[in-house]
Amino acid sequence: MPILVNGRAGRLDPLDRGLQYGDGLFETMAVRDGRARFAEWHLARLTEGARRLALPLPDQEMLLGQIAAAWPGGRGVVKLIWTRGAAGRGYRPPANVEPTCIAAGFEWPAWPESAWSAGVRLRFCRTRLGRNPVLAGIKHLNRLEQVLARAEWDDERIAEGLMLDDRGQVISGTQSNLFAVSAGQIVTPALDQCGVAGIMRRAFCAWAALHATTVVERSLRPRELETATEIFVTNALIGAWPVRELAGREVPAGPHAAKFNSWLATQE
Amino acid sequence: MPILVNGRAGRLDPLDRGLQYGDGLFETMAVRDGRARFAEWHLARLTEGARRLALPLPDQEMLLGQIAAAWPGGRGVVKLIWTRGAAGRGYRPPANVEPTCIAAGFEWPAWPESAWSAGVRLRFCRTRLGRNPVLAGIKHLNRLEQVLARAEWDDERIAEGLMLDDRGQVISGTQSNLFAVSAGQIVTPALDQCGVAGIMRRAFCAWAALHATTVVERSLRPRELETATEIFVTNALIGAWPVRELAGREVPAGPHAAKFNSWLATQE
Repeated sequence: MPILVNGRAGRLDPLDRGLQYGDGLFETMAVRDGRARFAEWHLARLTEGARRLALPLPDQEMLLGQIAAAWPGGRGVVKLIWTRGAAGRGYRPPANVEPTCIAAGFEWPAWPESAWSAGVRLRFCRTRLGRNPVLAGIKHLNRLEQVLARAEWDDERIAEGLMLDDRGQVISGTQSNLFAVSAGQIVTPALDQCGVAGIMRRAFCAWAALHATTVVERSLRPRELETATEIFVTNALIGAWPVRELAGREVPAGPHAAKFNSWLATQE
Repeated sequence: MPILVNGRAGRLDPLDRGLQYGDGLFETMAVRDGRARFAEWHLARLTEGARRLALPLPDQEMLLGQIAAAWPGGRGVVKLIWTRGAAGRGYRPPANVEPTCIAAGFEWPAWPESAWSAGVRLRFCRTRLGRNPVLAGIKHLNRLEQVLARAEWDDERIAEGLMLDDRGQVISGTQSNLFAVSAGQIVTPALDQCGVAGIMRRAFCAWAALHATTVVERSLRPRELETATEIFVTNALIGAWPVRELAGREVPAGPHAAKFNSWLATQE
C-alpha cells in the first residue's frame, strides 16, 4: 500500500516538526476492511494528545477516511501519525502551520497462535522510563526509550520486555500494557508519570467492569510480580497475551486473558 | 537553499525512524562559507550520540561535505540530522538499514545586538525535564519537553526560559546552556540526568580553562540564581548572552560573557 501524506501518496517535508522534534502523535490500529477496531477510542486518545500538546485537533471523519484509504480490504494494521507540520527552525510552535496527517497500512503480523494459547516469555529491560506528567499517557512521537529497551534483546523466544521507571516501579512493556493478578486483585500500573495508556488496556478495563471485576491502577513493584497468580500484556493488535514466563520464572496460568480474548473476537 | 536528504535535494520517506520514534540525532551549527564553527566538536557529539543510540557512525568527511553543500557561501546556520533510516513498523532497531542524513541551511537569525551588549531577559518554565541517564547530554530528536516549554510564552521581550528537572534543579534553557557565577565560582548545571551538553558550553569551559578559571559542573537550585553575580546562557549560534533579568529580578552584569564573546569573534 502507498503511504498517504495529507491524503496523497507521497513523501514528507524534512522540515516537518514530527521529524525535527518528535512534535506529534501516533495511533496503531487493528483494521478490517477499512475499519479500525475501537476506532472511537483511538481517535479520542489522539485528540486528547493533540489537546495536551496544543496541536490542531484532527477532524474525526477525515481520520476515519484516511484509515480506510490506508487499508481498504482485509485484515491489516494502520498507523496514523499527526504532527504539528513543517516549519522553520526553533522549538517554538509556529502559528498558522498546517498539521501533517500520515496514514500507513501494513500486513497483519504473523504471530504464532501459541502466544495466545500457551502464553509468552517476558524479560526485564535495563532501559528505564523517565517521568514527566505532561507527556505521560499520550502516544507521542518521542519513543527513544522504547527503541533502546527493545534493542536490548535478540532472542526471538522473548516476546516482550518490561520497563521500570527511574524509581524502580514497573510501568509497561516496550509496546504493551501490563496486568497482574495480585492478592486476588487485577492490577495495572498507574500511568500518570510515564507510559502510554493503551487502547487495549482501556478495552480490558471496560470488559472487566462489564463483568463486575475491578481493575486497580496503582504503582507496582517488580517483586509483586513474583507472587502474581496471572500476568498478561495487552496492545491494540494482540489483544491480551498471557505471560507464562517472566525473567526465567514460570508464571501461573489464569483465566482473565483467555476470557477477554474470547470477548474481543466478537468485537471485530 | 534546498534541503539535502542523503546528499540530494529531496523529501523524506514517511517510514523514517527519525519521524516514527525520534530515533536519531541533530546538530545546529554556525556556518561561514561552508565551514562550521567548532565543526570537530559538533561531529564528535554526533558520533558520541550515535554510539549511545547504537546508530551507524557517520563518516566525518561526508558530514563536512553535507555542511558545505547546505550553506556554501556567507554566514548561515546548518542543521544536520542523522537517523536510523526508514524501516518497517516496530521499535526494534532493524538490521542492515541505511541511516538517513539530512542537511538544511538557514539564514543567520536577526537577533538584536543588544542581546550581547545589554543582555537578555529570562523566565522560568513550568514544563519540567524528565530524567534519563541513557539519553542525557546527547542531542537526540525527542524534544517535546523543549517544544512545550517554549510554547509557554509569547512575550518577545523574553529571550529564553529556564527548565528545571523533576527534582526542581535548574538544568538549562530551552535552547541554551546556563552558567552562573555563585560565591565567586563559575557554575554550570551537571547534565548526567537530562539536558543537552552544548557545544558552546564546551567552548566556554575550554576558554575558561585557558584563562586558569575553573567551571564547576554540579546541581544548581533556582534559589542560588537569586544571589548570582553574573548569569549567562550559551548556544552554538549566539555564543554567550548575558542575562540582565531573570523572572523579573535584575541580574548584575559580570565580565565573563563579554570576554568570552570577544574571544569567540576571533574563532570564526
